[in-house]
Amino acid sequence: RSYCSRVALTQGLLFKQLFESESSTYTYLLADTETKEAILIDPVLETIDRDLKLIHELGLNLKVAVNTHCHADHITSTGLMKKRLVGLKSAISKLSGASADIHLSEGDKINFGKHYLTVRETPGHTDGCVTLVLGDQSMSFTGDALLIRGCGRTDFQQGCAKRLYESIHQKIFTLPDHCLVYPAHDYRGQTASTVGEERKFNPRLTKSVEEFVDIMNNLNLPKPKKIDISVPANLVCGVHEV
Amino acid sequence: RSYCSRVALTQGLLFKQLFESESSTYTYLLADTETKEAILIDPVLETIDRDLKLIHELGLNLKVAVNTHCHADHITSTGLMKKRLVGLKSAISKLSGASADIHLSEGDKINFGKHYLTVRETPGHTDGCVTLVLGDQSMSFTGDALLIRGCGRTDFQQGCAKRLYESIHQKIFTLPDHCLVYPAHDYRGQTASTVGEERKFNPRLTKSVEEFVDIMNNLNLPKPKKIDISVPANLVCGVHEV
Ligand SMILES: [Fe+2]
Ligand SMILES: [Fe+2]
Repeated sequence: RSYCSRVALTQGLLFKQLFESESSTYTYLLADTETKEAILIDPVLETIDRDLKLIHELGLNLKVAVNTHCHADHITSTGLMKKRLVGLKSAISKLSGASADIHLSEGDKINFGKHYLTVRETPGHTDGCVTLVLGDQSMSFTGDALLIRGCGRTDFQQGCAKRLYESIHQKIFTLPDHCLVYPAHDYRGQTASTVGEERKFNPRLTKSVEEFVDIMNNLNLPKPKKIDISVPANLVCGVHEV
Repeated sequence: RSYCSRVALTQGLLFKQLFESESSTYTYLLADTETKEAILIDPVLETIDRDLKLIHELGLNLKVAVNTHCHADHITSTGLMKKRLVGLKSAISKLSGASADIHLSEGDKINFGKHYLTVRETPGHTDGCVTLVLGDQSMSFTGDALLIRGCGRTDFQQGCAKRLYESIHQKIFTLPDHCLVYPAHDYRGQTASTVGEERKFNPRLTKSVEEFVDIMNNLNLPKPKKIDISVPANLVCGVHEV
């Protein structure tokens, strides 16, 4: 039953999955139910008011707003959120080349109360993509590296199909089968998967590396609509003064 | 911390939340990870292929496809799904007036493996609305009765604001605060709430019954686009031969 999804068992964890429909982006809020320390993953500019209202209602103390990579399809709200929440720090990988308060590298931990996320570098969609794994390995936030039954594209922003294949196999598929997979996007109404399911059913990643590279190099996708405004903005947390 | 969401702790439960973006409907798949017996809540005609593929991949034996009520905004896939899956039974409340293999009433149980859902009648949006509660009361599927920070409208299909207010207060807000709330719809990218959160933060249900009735009677919403085709179809499981 390794491919069966199940609800995670982490005690004392508050978890909210949120969706921004224009860019089909998932934002994730995690908090320690005791200390109220919270982190936010991949928040979107358009939904900043919804997200801040929820954080406020739940009485959370948002410590870190982290991006899994420098997004090309939407503008992050981390910069604007820093202006609205005193003490909030932005975070992104060092290899993204983007400015932020915290630059993340392989093995780094982001603490919130008794919980933490560990950084796994998973380049291939971009050089600076990371996957964030909850301390007990019950949840992974895979950004645009691994999507549900799909993966991030590799045809712009330092994309490299071979690197993405290796990242997913070496850094994500080595997690426990029951580890939940929460991607940065889904376009088909799917909300979560598991490592076991993706190892078994992902139509691209179950192929050989050669076949995968071939698939990825022949997708012929249009350029993301917002890439020319999103990438420069996201290099500075979505605002021009960080 | 009663208003904090948390991930449910039910062992041996497979759970998938799925979204249909045209009608903003959530479909829920639940299964026993041992026996593979599964139930599906509020499946939508447009996403039948996605849902059947997932059920097949996960090796599930879908026993019952249940609608929380006779929907006005989309056509159910239960009728068509019965033609594709041998042995599948459709279910809806007796009070809905719709035909189905199983007619549900207050207190009825829908079993799948060692798990079950209990039926709570929660009329007000329609006469036949039910809320389905997991045996351990860790999850509730509230249909169009209680939505996240909102509720179903009461201006068509036997809608009655006072009845909806009483249903939610007597049948949903009496569940444990930590009980997760999974509605049939969300229009703002929210995926789940809890009973405790809604008791505390729902902008309509925290009002008095008089204020609630006043709010609901003055929403001035347009008629659902698909009501004239959806309701007649959903009275017969979405197909004209059940
Ligand atoms: Fe991306
Ligand atoms: Fe409805």
